Amino acid sequence: MPSATPVSPKIRPDESLADSVVFNDIVSAAATLRGIAHRSPVLTSRAIDTLTGASVMLKCESFQRVGAFKFRGAYNAISQLPGNANGVLAYSSGNHAQGVALASAMLGVRAVIVMPADAPAVKIAATRGYLEAGGAQTGSVKGSEVVTFDPATTVREELGARIAEERGLAIVPPYDHPHIIAGQGTAAMELIEDHGPFDALYVCCGGGGLLSGSAIASRAMQPGCRVVGVEPELGDDVTESFRTGVLHAVHRPPTIADGARTPRPGRYTFPIIRRDVDAMMTVADDELRSAMRLVFERMKLVVEPSGVLGLAGVLRDAKERPELVRGRRIGVLLSGGNVDPAEFSGLISGGGRA
Amino acid sequence: MPSATPVSPKIRPDESLADSVVFNDIVSAAATLRGIAHRSPVLTSRAIDTLTGASVMLKCESFQRVGAFKFRGAYNAISQLPGNANGVLAYSSGNHAQGVALASAMLGVRAVIVMPADAPAVKIAATRGYLEAGGAQTGSVKGSEVVTFDPATTVREELGARIAEERGLAIVPPYDHPHIIAGQGTAAMELIEDHGPFDALYVCCGGGGLLSGSAIASRAMQPGCRVVGVEPELGDDVTESFRTGVLHAVHRPPTIADGARTPRPGRYTFPIIRRDVDAMMTVADDELRSAMRLVFERMKLVVEPSGVLGLAGVLRDAKERPELVRGRRIGVLLSGGNVDPAEFSGLISGGGRA
Repeated sequence: MPSATPVSPKIRPDESLADSVVFNDIVSAAATLRGIAHRSPVLTSRAIDTLTGASVMLKCESFQRVGAFKFRGAYNAISQLPGNANGVLAYSSGNHAQGVALASAMLGVRAVIVMPADAPAVKIAATRGYLEAGGAQTGSVKGSEVVTFDPATTVREELGARIAEERGLAIVPPYDHPHIIAGQGTAAMELIEDHGPFDALYVCCGGGGLLSGSAIASRAMQPGCRVVGVEPELGDDVTESFRTGVLHAVHRPPTIADGARTPRPGRYTFPIIRRDVDAMMTVADDELRSAMRLVFERMKLVVEPSGVLGLAGVLRDAKERPELVRGRRIGVLLSGGNVDPAEFSGLISGGGRA
Repeated sequence: MPSATPVSPKIRPDESLADSVVFNDIVSAAATLRGIAHRSPVLTSRAIDTLTGASVMLKCESFQRVGAFKFRGAYNAISQLPGNANGVLAYSSGNHAQGVALASAMLGVRAVIVMPADAPAVKIAATRGYLEAGGAQTGSVKGSEVVTFDPATTVREELGARIAEERGLAIVPPYDHPHIIAGQGTAAMELIEDHGPFDALYVCCGGGGLLSGSAIASRAMQPGCRVVGVEPELGDDVTESFRTGVLHAVHRPPTIADGARTPRPGRYTFPIIRRDVDAMMTVADDELRSAMRLVFERMKLVVEPSGVLGLAGVLRDAKERPELVRGRRIGVLLSGGNVDPAEFSGLISGGGRA
């Protein structure tokens, strides 16, 4: 049974927004990111190939700067800021905050990051670290800071909008912007350049920035490839929207995949997904735990729960729809590796079907 | 205060045995291993470079087949078996068991692996898996098996010797053999080929197979490089033997670095270490925990306690003897990544100076 429900009043996406990003925007983003973002390594695992009967290539964005693909979109967006902006603002307690912090410091752009005061202390500290040191490369930019708020009394969007207005800052959204989508698309572009064409490409889906960018790259570079978006069962807003054509939402999905707790698809990302993605599927949190444990044990990699969504999708399909997987060349994006030690310990040691 | 004590009667190593392995043996081993062992990736970390003030290159043998460098020496040794051997025998509860199991299966050689019945079930299962499937490549060899014994009533060396004699098997020692040393030396050789010359090379030391092979490779390829062996404080047998020139031993060192719990230096490895290694040092178990947590958090890598000995040595020197580290190009071997989820969780979450 779906977790997501239709938003009211019923909203059909504006299909014309799918044209806001074209493949050439991803090519341009790749030029912007050359020498700046890592060309992250692509690893394989005999254990995973044996389990699936396929040849699976995993693009490890866990090794990307700030530990996740989010740096790509943030840097691409901030490097194209309108001239009248005094800087940027982002609200996020996750990888987007760190991506914007590092990218803005590297570009010498002032950045305000709005984070809940109860976010993990290590994440706040890491974000401050990037703002202050620019990854030890550039030093701090005047006026850059982390602003914390009490989530019990404050709505972050309102606080963010007020600060942005007062200080003349441009808001950098976590996924729903053409420059973000184009930046995220460079990860799949690299994977296809290095090891494509693939028969299928499995991509995690939260707000859909990585998925929509990947789908555009794949459609242009390997039109015969099946592009699959994978969401957590408990946060199946994109899957249900995709299935029905009507916008669905899940309020605070209680999944362990914290990077995919976005409540609804984006205005830009969703029309692209509807047009260029072949299938959406969901996986249970237990399947994410199993996949995390598999990459821990057999690949010696630390990947966060959202980061294994694509792999969990391949493993599920290998069991339930083997004709889609056996003998195929399959690309997977492992999207990030930022997870607290205590949380990671609980996830790999605890239950699940490992 | 040293943990190791001189063995009685006092033993001075046979220096002539240092000539049992020459650089050309490592070159030959590399040819044997080409296309068989992985050329493991070398990763860097801005966080580690910032912490140390150096340029540190980490060779990730955690990505090697069976998850540790041990595969290199095992394959090299088994591929040079004398013609009259009916197969091989190894006793080990660790990475050596898995290395011998996979290498023998790949070479079509019968292997008996003697393991204590109380070894972690996953390790026994993994070793059986390699024997049975040869990494899903070759299938099982007739007569290959894991033999378990009760460590309370049985001395493994005696059991191993009896089975080897009865079945005509050659014993493959975990470190103290010229073919093993030559095989292990290929890891440093690759690192130096790809990124050398280095100012210093930090290598973990258990029985000294990896360290002695690395020292021979380094001496030949980059004679000006300082080669440092790093042991756990609680198992400082090689360090004390190195310092005094007299063989020291530690009975069952209680360190978390299970790969470095060897009681004493080898007959072959030690004379090489005395001749070609510039310094031995020890690090505390807490420093190993910190280093594991650092590579977990900042590099998203799973490395076992013994695997971070070299890195912990660099971090210690960066603090206490910065003149040896700052501004230098430093090579480090991360030797393996085989650690149980529960154990890993305890190590990265628990105490330590992270």
